[in-house]
Amino acid sequence: MHHSEHKIFILTEENQSYHDLLLSHSLPELTITQDPAEADIVLAAPPKIADKLDQFPKLQWLQSTYAGVNALMPSGLRRDYTLTNVRGIFGPLIAEYVLGYSIAHWRHLPLYAQQQQQRQWQPHLYTSLQGKRVVILGTGSIGNHLAHVCSAMGLHTMGINRTGIPPTGSHFHQTYHINELAAALTQADIVVNTLPSTEQTKHLLNQASLSHCRQVLLFNVGRGDVLDNAALLLALKNRWVEHAFLDVFEQEPLPNDHPFWGLKQITITPHIAALSFAEQVVEIFAENYQRWIEGYPLNYQVSFAKGY
Amino acid sequence: MHHSEHKIFILTEENQSYHDLLLSHSLPELTITQDPAEADIVLAAPPKIADKLDQFPKLQWLQSTYAGVNALMPSGLRRDYTLTNVRGIFGPLIAEYVLGYSIAHWRHLPLYAQQQQQRQWQPHLYTSLQGKRVVILGTGSIGNHLAHVCSAMGLHTMGINRTGIPPTGSHFHQTYHINELAAALTQADIVVNTLPSTEQTKHLLNQASLSHCRQVLLFNVGRGDVLDNAALLLALKNRWVEHAFLDVFEQEPLPNDHPFWGLKQITITPHIAALSFAEQVVEIFAENYQRWIEGYPLNYQVSFAKGY
Repeated sequence: MHHSEHKIFILTEENQSYHDLLLSHSLPELTITQDPAEADIVLAAPPKIADKLDQFPKLQWLQSTYAGVNALMPSGLRRDYTLTNVRGIFGPLIAEYVLGYSIAHWRHLPLYAQQQQQRQWQPHLYTSLQGKRVVILGTGSIGNHLAHVCSAMGLHTMGINRTGIPPTGSHFHQTYHINELAAALTQADIVVNTLPSTEQTKHLLNQASLSHCRQVLLFNVGRGDVLDNAALLLALKNRWVEHAFLDVFEQEPLPNDHPFWGLKQITITPHIAALSFAEQVVEIFAENYQRWIEGYPLNYQVSFAKGY
Repeated sequence: MHHSEHKIFILTEENQSYHDLLLSHSLPELTITQDPAEADIVLAAPPKIADKLDQFPKLQWLQSTYAGVNALMPSGLRRDYTLTNVRGIFGPLIAEYVLGYSIAHWRHLPLYAQQQQQRQWQPHLYTSLQGKRVVILGTGSIGNHLAHVCSAMGLHTMGINRTGIPPTGSHFHQTYHINELAAALTQADIVVNTLPSTEQTKHLLNQASLSHCRQVLLFNVGRGDVLDNAALLLALKNRWVEHAFLDVFEQEPLPNDHPFWGLKQITITPHIAALSFAEQVVEIFAENYQRWIEGYPLNYQVSFAKGY
């Protein structure tokens, strides 16, 4: 049990929104403080708080406003607090991103926009998404929700994870062990990486694995370093990948002189596939806060050992 | 029972494909003829066959390769044959169209494409499709499948039909009688017309009905004359409609000097929301042919009285 008053410090891109939303939840025995020295709880965006952790001597619990907590993982940083992130709210947003771009690609939406500017009425043949095969790396809540929506649109869904066992409430038609990645990629029309950055996932999509693909649409909505950039360029050249949709990069913002910007087979978005909406983050925080004051384990705890 | 040999004449945009596909099905007692005078069955695109019906003295059954059979409805034309169309294959295609454009709109996909050309890394806030309300005019197989996919993406689905009764296997959260159209439109974020052209549906989306909308995305994937063009222009001016996605028009191709071409709040596509894929049409025909020779009623019969 954590008794008595708690003080929370907010450090996000939208402090005022979070401030107002926290007040509107009227959480018991919680006040918002502007003084790092007296805060036992912090609600923060990892990149903003990472170099300031030592200013919070009373820190007990840090609720990340992101799913990605890499910024807090370097070995020099404190690990003497409970870290929670946000989960379960990104699946629908990722599904919109993947399906929106897949439909736009296969159904020629940009081409029709061009034709309209020229007042040109010209139908083009297309393929439907029905019956296509999507390989999803990661069968957590994001991957499983994506599989659910893909399935409703008539795609065949194949999940990749570390066990080969379908997740609870699985929407995957098939689940493959990570060791069978090549066998899955050989069948893919769409490949979606939802995996976080860990030692095991770094450059998992490399020349060896990508060489099993045949003209796939490749999405990276997980973390930038899961994809080997040099291997992607080769994969595009060899048509292993027909088009890549990249929302995350090893360095963000993507540097201005990066070759990806100018390639017409690459679509770049500025890490927006799944934004944390403050309303949803505060709902997660509020439920966790109730657990905290009642002494229950927090939801969505991050393991410093695993890195996610 | 229809005994002995049958002869089929093909008149479509893809005669060779249909020829090959029919042969590959090896349908019993059916041969393909090039002579209209001896054909008792015709597989045809309605606009192509409409002015040639009198060349087929033995015509018993016409299988349309389209869903839309308006071209065969004028009162001067023959009605002494069984007319069937294709159904049940367009739902997934229409769902891709509606969701693809809705995602592209609300998630700024064209804007990110522009930014990429300028090597500009600039996120923009957006709204998800989750929780939005889609009003679908028509609760047949197309509307119901669209509701299914919308529902999987977290939208609230409202169907409009002539009874107010949900269809068999309904995926609608609510079903409204056509007399309650205004009440439904008042709540809509997306409005989709899937209705065919009949006396009852002509200009159903007019100034009176559209005035109940508030900044909706409006899709017309049914028939052009369900939408009153002048009312749409007013609706865009008054922001009743934020953006219109039009795939069907009273006159097709849309004339080169039509004002719609140049409006940035209108997206024009050349009647491609749901193409008839020859493979699927021939599957429908093959099943119907078996029913024909065995004396069962055909699937997807069109009523000349109703016009659909």
